Amino acid sequence: MNDRQKVAMDRLTEVAEGIYDALDRGDIPQMTLPLRSKRNIEFDPMTQVWKYGSLKTTRTAKTTQGATTMLRTAYTTDFINEMIRENKSSTLREMYYISEGWNAAKFHTQDEGNLLAEDLETISHCMREDFKLRPEESGAHVYGNVTFRTMTKKGMKDINCMDDVSEQGFAVPYSVEKETFEIKSHDVKFIMALETGGMYARLIENGFPEKAECCLVHLSGQPARSTRRLIKRLNEENGLPVVVFTDGDPWSFRIFASVAYGAIKTAHISDYLATPTAQFIGITASDILNYDLPTDKLNDKDIGALHAELTDPRFNDEFWDSEIHAMLDMGKKAEQQALAKYGLDYVTDTYLPEKLSQLGLL
Amino acid sequence: MNDRQKVAMDRLTEVAEGIYDALDRGDIPQMTLPLRSKRNIEFDPMTQVWKYGSLKTTRTAKTTQGATTMLRTAYTTDFINEMIRENKSSTLREMYYISEGWNAAKFHTQDEGNLLAEDLETISHCMREDFKLRPEESGAHVYGNVTFRTMTKKGMKDINCMDDVSEQGFAVPYSVEKETFEIKSHDVKFIMALETGGMYARLIENGFPEKAECCLVHLSGQPARSTRRLIKRLNEENGLPVVVFTDGDPWSFRIFASVAYGAIKTAHISDYLATPTAQFIGITASDILNYDLPTDKLNDKDIGALHAELTDPRFNDEFWDSEIHAMLDMGKKAEQQALAKYGLDYVTDTYLPEKLSQLGLL
Repeated sequence: MNDRQKVAMDRLTEVAEGIYDALDRGDIPQMTLPLRSKRNIEFDPMTQVWKYGSLKTTRTAKTTQGATTMLRTAYTTDFINEMIRENKSSTLREMYYISEGWNAAKFHTQDEGNLLAEDLETISHCMREDFKLRPEESGAHVYGNVTFRTMTKKGMKDINCMDDVSEQGFAVPYSVEKETFEIKSHDVKFIMALETGGMYARLIENGFPEKAECCLVHLSGQPARSTRRLIKRLNEENGLPVVVFTDGDPWSFRIFASVAYGAIKTAHISDYLATPTAQFIGITASDILNYDLPTDKLNDKDIGALHAELTDPRFNDEFWDSEIHAMLDMGKKAEQQALAKYGLDYVTDTYLPEKLSQLGLL
Repeated sequence: MNDRQKVAMDRLTEVAEGIYDALDRGDIPQMTLPLRSKRNIEFDPMTQVWKYGSLKTTRTAKTTQGATTMLRTAYTTDFINEMIRENKSSTLREMYYISEGWNAAKFHTQDEGNLLAEDLETISHCMREDFKLRPEESGAHVYGNVTFRTMTKKGMKDINCMDDVSEQGFAVPYSVEKETFEIKSHDVKFIMALETGGMYARLIENGFPEKAECCLVHLSGQPARSTRRLIKRLNEENGLPVVVFTDGDPWSFRIFASVAYGAIKTAHISDYLATPTAQFIGITASDILNYDLPTDKLNDKDIGALHAELTDPRFNDEFWDSEIHAMLDMGKKAEQQALAKYGLDYVTDTYLPEKLSQLGLL
C-alpha cells in the first residue's frame, strides 16, 4: 500500500464513519456534494482550470433512493478497502458485476457505479485511481524521444518511447502517478496531442517527431484520465508546451476543452487533469475555409452540440465564439485526415509548420 | 522495397495493363471477381479455412459505374505504386481524401475505397499490407513471455512482451509480415485471445500468463487483420494452440469465427489470417446456465444476428447449432466480465482452469 492509497483508505473510512455516526446519534445520514453540471462549472484563477462552483446537491437517507445510495457507499468503500489491502484493482465494469452480491445495494446500470466512484472522489479528495478502480481501456499511446520509468513484471524499468517500442508507440498505463510512473528524461521541445490514430501514424511515418523535436500523444478519441494526467505531468514537471490537433467538429472541440480546461464530469479533479496552457491548432472552422478542406455537412446532433458549447462557460472567449459561429454559418465540419487531399506530406510540410510557427514552436 | 512489395507492384501493373490492352484491342475492359457474400463461402479442406467459392461477379466498363471502377482501379494502382516506391503507407481514410484529386474517380464514401482495396487483393493475390494500405488503428496488444523482433526507429529490436512493456503490453503493428516482424522466442504453452480490455487487464493482474504459461492477445473487439495474422503465425510457426475467450453474444461468436474460420469480408486471404485449430472457451450459452451468470436480454439485433449465424456455413456444426439455439431459447446474453459476480479471482481460479483442463491445456 503506498501513501496515496493509505490516504484514500482513511478518507473513505471517514465517509462510512460519518454515516454510522449519524445513525448512532439518531440522525438521518446525509452527504452533500457539488452539483455536477455545466451550470456549476467555474473558472478557478489560482489553477487556471474549470472546477465545480458552489452549487450543492444533498443526498439524504430520508428517501429510499437516498438510503440505497448510502448502502452502496458502504459496500463500495468496503470493496475498495479490500482491493487496496490485497493489492488488486478492478474495472468499473467488474465492480458493477461484483455488486450482484450486494443485495439491495446492487447497481442497476454501470453508470450508477461510475457516478458513485466520482462522488467518492469529490467527498474524499482522492482519485479513482487511488481507489484502484479503472476504466476498460484507454487506447492511448505515446511516441517521441521521452523516457518513462514504468512498472513492469521485473519492477521499474526505463522505456524510451521511440527506441524501445513498435511503431504504435508506448501504451499508457491506467495510473501514471509518481509511485509507479516517472518521467525520466526527454529531448523534445513540446507535446502534440492528436485525436485520431490515422494522423498519429501519419506523423510518425513522416518523421515529424524527429524533425519538430516533439512528443506525440494519441488521445484515441475523448481522452482517458490517465492520458490527460500524463499530458499534465509532462507540461508541469518538464515545462513542455502542449498543442492539441483534432478533427474540426464540436466533439473535437470538447476533446480540446477536456485537455485544456477540465471536463465537466471530472471538474473536481481538474487541477490534476487539465493543462490550462494547452493550445488548439485545429482543425478550426477557419482552417476549413483557408485550406479549402473536404467537408461533411453538420448533422442535427453536431448543431445541437455547437449551440451547447455557446452556453458552456469554458468556451466563453473571443476565439471559440468566432470559431463556433463560423462553423454554424458554413454548416460544415472536417476531419484532420482531410488534409490528405493535398498529399500525404501536406500536413507535415505545410499545415503543421504554419500552425506551429505562429506559436513560436517551430 | 521488399520482395512482397515488388510482387504487389508487378501484379497491380498487370491489372492496369489488362485494362489498357482491352482498350487497345477495341474490347470493353472487364474484371471478374469472386462474389463476396455468405452465399459464396466454402470450406477448403486443404487449408481447413473458409474461402470464396466459385460464384463470380463481373465488372464491365459497359456501364458508367463499371467504367468508374476501372478508372478508380487505375488511380489506386498508381497511388499504391507511388507509396511503395517512396516507402510510404497510407490509412484507408487518407486514400479516400487523396481521391479528392482523382476527378471522376473520386470515392464518394470510404467504403468504396475499402472495397476496391479488397478487390485488388483478390485479383492480385497480394495483401492490402503489401499495398501499404492500413486501417486507422488496431488497438491490439500482446502480453506474455514471447519475444518479437520488430521494427523500431533504431532498426530491428527485440521486445519481450512481459519484461519490456508497460502493463498494457506490446502494441501490435499494422503489418506483422516476416520482413519487419519476427517471432524470436517464447516460453509459453498456448495463446489466449481475449475480446475485452477489462478481461485482459484482469488476467494480467491476477498473474495468469505466468501461472498458466500462456500469452494473451487482446483482440479489442472484432480483430484487425494484423492481430489475426499474428495469432496465425504464433500457431503455425511455433505450434502454439490457440483458445479464444469472448463475451457470450452473437457478435462475439463472429469474432471467434473470424479468428478460427476466416471472415466473410476477407475470405480471399483466409489462409493467411485464420487459425482453424483455434478453440472457443466461452462465454457460451451453456456457461450462462452452468455458472448462473448475470445476463442482459437479447435485443432484436442480437436475435437477428443469431438467426443469420444459423444459415452461416461457418457455424454449421453440432456445437454451434446447439449453442445458438440455446441462446435463442433463453433469450439472454452475458459478458465475460460477468464472472466477476463471484469475485475478481473467480475467472482465473475456477472458470479458466475448468475450461482449459477440458482441452488438456492446464
